[in-house]
Amino acid sequence: MESNQTSKKAIVVGAGLVGSLWAVFLARRGYQVEVYERRSDMRAAGYTGGRSINLAMSERGWKAIEKAGIREKIEKVAIPMPGRMIHSVEGELSFQPYGKAGEAIYSVSRGGLNLELLSIAGSFPNVQFFFDHRCLDADLERPVLTFEDTGTGAVKTVEAPLVFAADGAFSAVRYAIQKTDRFNYNQFYLEHGYKELSIPPDANGRHRIDPSALHIWPRGNFMLIALPNADGSFTCTLFLPFEGEVSFEKLTGNDAVNAFFKKYFADALPHMPTLLDDFWGNPTSSLVTVKCAPWQWQNRILLIGDAAHAIVPFYGQGMNAGFEDCTILDAMHDELDGDWSRIIPQFARERQPDGDAIAELAQRNFIEMRDLVGDPQFLLRKKIAARLHERHPDFLPVYSMVTFSNTPYHVALEEDDAQNRLFERVLRLEDAEHNWDGVEEVFGQWLNGKLNS
Amino acid sequence: MESNQTSKKAIVVGAGLVGSLWAVFLARRGYQVEVYERRSDMRAAGYTGGRSINLAMSERGWKAIEKAGIREKIEKVAIPMPGRMIHSVEGELSFQPYGKAGEAIYSVSRGGLNLELLSIAGSFPNVQFFFDHRCLDADLERPVLTFEDTGTGAVKTVEAPLVFAADGAFSAVRYAIQKTDRFNYNQFYLEHGYKELSIPPDANGRHRIDPSALHIWPRGNFMLIALPNADGSFTCTLFLPFEGEVSFEKLTGNDAVNAFFKKYFADALPHMPTLLDDFWGNPTSSLVTVKCAPWQWQNRILLIGDAAHAIVPFYGQGMNAGFEDCTILDAMHDELDGDWSRIIPQFARERQPDGDAIAELAQRNFIEMRDLVGDPQFLLRKKIAARLHERHPDFLPVYSMVTFSNTPYHVALEEDDAQNRLFERVLRLEDAEHNWDGVEEVFGQWLNGKLNS
Repeated sequence: MESNQTSKKAIVVGAGLVGSLWAVFLARRGYQVEVYERRSDMRAAGYTGGRSINLAMSERGWKAIEKAGIREKIEKVAIPMPGRMIHSVEGELSFQPYGKAGEAIYSVSRGGLNLELLSIAGSFPNVQFFFDHRCLDADLERPVLTFEDTGTGAVKTVEAPLVFAADGAFSAVRYAIQKTDRFNYNQFYLEHGYKELSIPPDANGRHRIDPSALHIWPRGNFMLIALPNADGSFTCTLFLPFEGEVSFEKLTGNDAVNAFFKKYFADALPHMPTLLDDFWGNPTSSLVTVKCAPWQWQNRILLIGDAAHAIVPFYGQGMNAGFEDCTILDAMHDELDGDWSRIIPQFARERQPDGDAIAELAQRNFIEMRDLVGDPQFLLRKKIAARLHERHPDFLPVYSMVTFSNTPYHVALEEDDAQNRLFERVLRLEDAEHNWDGVEEVFGQWLNGKLNS
Repeated sequence: MESNQTSKKAIVVGAGLVGSLWAVFLARRGYQVEVYERRSDMRAAGYTGGRSINLAMSERGWKAIEKAGIREKIEKVAIPMPGRMIHSVEGELSFQPYGKAGEAIYSVSRGGLNLELLSIAGSFPNVQFFFDHRCLDADLERPVLTFEDTGTGAVKTVEAPLVFAADGAFSAVRYAIQKTDRFNYNQFYLEHGYKELSIPPDANGRHRIDPSALHIWPRGNFMLIALPNADGSFTCTLFLPFEGEVSFEKLTGNDAVNAFFKKYFADALPHMPTLLDDFWGNPTSSLVTVKCAPWQWQNRILLIGDAAHAIVPFYGQGMNAGFEDCTILDAMHDELDGDWSRIIPQFARERQPDGDAIAELAQRNFIEMRDLVGDPQFLLRKKIAARLHERHPDFLPVYSMVTFSNTPYHVALEEDDAQNRLFERVLRLEDAEHNWDGVEEVFGQWLNGKLNS
């Protein structure tokens, strides 16, 4: 079966995380793979551009990485984060485990991971890279893709009978498909932006705060987070509204920035000696969600990764979802005998509800993260959920389902809706925290489907 | 005030209904107006292309037409439709008035109206038309627009300090804005398509069925409608899913089409001698809703009409909404002293909720129209609503608010939500039709705001 695929050509647009991983999967099956990438070859030039924001690798990501054969390599530089470390305004710390003992998400450098994936893809003789190639347009009917060589300015067209568009949230291929009839498309920006900051290593090259956690400073409508790096530093991200009472537009100078951090992130400030340089040197970036359908064009062009489902980063699932696209596509290749005219429509049809679901879950988790300290109702819900899980091990927190399992995202979203119905009723109980009989009764009704809608 | 505007240049992209009406408004204020239009000059070439589907002019449309000075001219060829004529499967007719006595919507030919608007715009010496000019792109920063002369193939750029993009649901200007940061955009297609058909005049040149109504053959998941024309014909539109049990894809040949009409539209079939020619000669078109925000770019480019808010045709409000954009913009010109740097952002901010609202109302009305006969609950609701309106004249049907008033669409949508809550409760009453005391009690609670959420 694989032998008659060897002469088949596949084009991958984008050599980011998902594009380069998918090139590896295709190369292993013997395809002649051409990968076109807007940026320069980071193997030569070093990692530049794109978001340097750290990634939280979890089950779905590991599964794909393992198939690509680089799990061990990545594991060596990945830092386990078994839970969240919550920082209150007063500087009190509280640790919330993400899952059971032994379960963790892993802080991974986007650049480092991308480099590894490019290296392994480049080790296949049947993978050819074209860096500094910006996709300008796709002529879907012929079909050809048009690229600009950003070094020379030369424009060339490439025949493209089989295309995997992994060219990200602002996919040029998707913009072309968007103009075709009956293509549903939605891009939605949060009112919040983000800015990267950092906590450098201490004088001895060690982490200044506990490296075995994802740190969160939740402040209601905004928050700061920090993920550990292998070199002793932390990459921090400030999520804040662009406009309004407390917002980026109000942080107009050094005094305003210092005062803001002193007021809201007092315990982090001493660890951020480069705060002002970081703040003025790094851009304020926006946060987009993209949903579209169908993810494919005439069984010949398939959108994968962010090109199909760009999501906000608050569930740590952007990369994991893109990598899972590869795992699932690869399994369908076996199931459907490498017949792309069937694989592409089936993947587009079956996988899309999962893309929509993780987009929704990621938006919901932003609210959860921001409210972690502030909202007593929310904390009470957490407490009761944990106790329910102890007594009824089948009652799995949605976070675990998303992060530590391969359950389809759309099932996790349905469970989230269901658990929201459950806790809406539970929290209406008088003194729910101590009324365990009442909680159990509502839980029983919920299990029996009596709390539907 | 107006005198210092005379040298000011304004570009209008699109000479469809909204573009040519807006050119008239600008011309009257002394602007040097350049209008660019993809199609040929229909004043010379006759009306071609675009949708020929009839329009239902109502209050908002008339108000703008009157300001443009052509109300009387259009009234002469507009056919009043004071209500819907419902055709059951068995061929029974029932007439439902749209509003009070004297209230009607008016069937108007899209082509004829567009011609009138072009003629009056063209009568101003300060309006210059560029037909056969397709907008290819907008360079927002300079800012310039790029047009292709579709006759010669020549490409030219036009300086564009002040642009009104009235270039329709697939606006080229909007596609350019879509790629800028923090622009929210949503295009959504119904699963239904539509096809135009016709009922020609009878041998004596007269209407074959009652011309003083909008005819509807509601069939649950699909429907046929017919609007009268001044020449004795009707323009019919079949709305049907593209795929599925009963769908366009199932109508594969003459036999299938004939059988379908015989089964579902038996009383219309004898009046449609050109059915098969129409069916195979006319395209099956899709139905898109477009929502976006903000409707403007840096106080210099404004999206109006379908370019800002394309909606499905089921409320008969597409043109009316676009014309109301012109009325409102014109009023803001007075209010803000012709200062576009304030008019454009204010219009974009204040009018957008109305665009979103009429998009939502139009989608809801599709369900209403299709269910007109089939759903007894719906008919009961109609009956009770009419009686409530009789006894409480302040209780206005949402249809009247949208069609016979200038109440902002977002207020009408809120009222629709509120009335849905009311009738959800009313229809839960036992034997609601005859339990008038019960209805009045629920209505009283509703008025007091006790049925909120």
